[in-house]
Amino acid sequence: MTKLVRFSVSMEEKLVATFDRLARKRGYANRSEAIRDALRAQLVRQEWKEGEEVAGVITLLYEHGRAGLSKRLTEIQHHALRQVISTTHIHLDHENCLEFVAVKGRAERVQKLADSLISLKGVKHGELAATSTGKRLL
Amino acid sequence: MTKLVRFSVSMEEKLVATFDRLARKRGYANRSEAIRDALRAQLVRQEWKEGEEVAGVITLLYEHGRAGLSKRLTEIQHHALRQVISTTHIHLDHENCLEFVAVKGRAERVQKLADSLISLKGVKHGELAATSTGKRLL
Amino acid sequence: MTKLVRFSVSMEEKLVATFDRLARKRGYANRSEAIRDALRAQLVRQEWKEGEEVAGVITLLYEHGRAGLSKRLTEIQHHALRQVISTTHIHLDHENCLEFVAVKGRAERVQKLADSLISLKGVKHGELAATSTGKRLL
Amino acid sequence: MTKLVRFSVSMEEKLVATFDRLARKRGYANRSEAIRDALRAQLVRQEWKEGEEVAGVITLLYEHGRAGLSKRLTEIQHHALRQVISTTHIHLDHENCLEFVAVKGRAERVQKLADSLISLKGVKHGELAATSTGKRLL
Repeated sequence: MTKLVRFSVSMEEKLVATFDRLARKRGYANRSEAIRDALRAQLVRQEWKEGEEVAGVITLLYEHGRAGLSKRLTEIQHHALRQVISTTHIHLDHENCLEFVAVKGRAERVQKLADSLISLKGVKHGELAATSTGKRLL
Repeated sequence: MTKLVRFSVSMEEKLVATFDRLARKRGYANRSEAIRDALRAQLVRQEWKEGEEVAGVITLLYEHGRAGLSKRLTEIQHHALRQVISTTHIHLDHENCLEFVAVKGRAERVQKLADSLISLKGVKHGELAATSTGKRLL
Repeated sequence: MTKLVRFSVSMEEKLVATFDRLARKRGYANRSEAIRDALRAQLVRQEWKEGEEVAGVITLLYEHGRAGLSKRLTEIQHHALRQVISTTHIHLDHENCLEFVAVKGRAERVQKLADSLISLKGVKHGELAATSTGKRLL
Repeated sequence: MTKLVRFSVSMEEKLVATFDRLARKRGYANRSEAIRDALRAQLVRQEWKEGEEVAGVITLLYEHGRAGLSKRLTEIQHHALRQVISTTHIHLDHENCLEFVAVKGRAERVQKLADSLISLKGVKHGELAATSTGKRLL
């Protein structure tokens, strides 16, 4: 399905040796896969910079006991139906919850949605983790 | 339950004005909450640096068609039972899947688990997004 | 000259305690200064995101022995006279040089200049470190 | 002097095309150099994580009018003679100065030095930009 191409790269011997050592340490089976991953990671950062269609996850750490908070979180997510794919909820301890909201859409919209969730009172930490829809990576 | 304290801060007028404008733009209802969030974000980065008990999510973008891959992803997660809390799977399109693995544990262990998943052949992009267990933030 | 304002913030006792401990560890004399720095760091990230007038430094690690490289680096910097403020050169060892190019200008232009320097053959590592012109921070 | 090796890499056609397009946009003359840079950037991040001997630049934005500040900045740098290589000073406007301190040493020491400068009252923004001594990259 996906067409593979093969090409050659020249590199300083020492650079290859250091890169191989690091790749092995992180669990890569071979050099090609480690190189492909390095390139794809760079492309994902670029997709986000350029405002392309992206995917990601919004991480929300909050206290479930806070009055009205989970209702508000749900409302905002419902108003962003086109961006929100799914939500996973985790009970960390008696007070703290972790919620992962999987999202997809234009980088700017997704960022705006993340801001509106993270800025709520009672949300103690939030972050938008960037990944890709994979369309331009394959 | 959580004891609140109140203290005063002095700040250049212009700095307050710029910060307030930005906070409003991101959806904060008041300045105090925006300040608390800025401090907590700094603390979460520090928890990760210092190898504390942390929480996070590993984002994995991969092709489900790749032989043996989803089996391998599952095996690795099962071997890391103490770190893995739950996994959410999303079908992005005919070829691409997105998987969010919620994790908890020592920063170093969690990073090692992320490396071993991301380095698998067929995983096109992966990232470890850092958050906190909330224990030291409240 | 700069007008100071004083206002009060309420915060969970535990959050204050953790933040104070971290601030002391990093050398802050008092809590107010640590809080101001946390807010300003957030504003600088925002200035760069929004394409404002920014300042920064481009770090270039390269081999001085590479034919034509230092000439090329100088030419590019001369063509970007309005962005480049000054350049510092350091001899790391027999082969490696470090060059710090202080820059100022619209975020996008500054990024483009950094790209054109970092992408030259013989430049082994380069990065654009973001700071601010300070105009909106004070 | 530096021995070059040549090896081949296989990659999805689409990934190569996207990477090539991005590399051209950032000014790379050829694919090999763009790939080498992507690998070296990853290695530099790793050197810092692992506490190796690193190089970098500490960016300091401050008001020169603040009593005692520039004296204090100089003192701290003198006490860190082994880490500090050189300092460049730039007059941004009537109030604001930019100072770039080129540093070298163990990652942890360099971070500690940066913290002690950035945490001073009157320093409005500071950052430690990471690069490498180049020893393991060539």
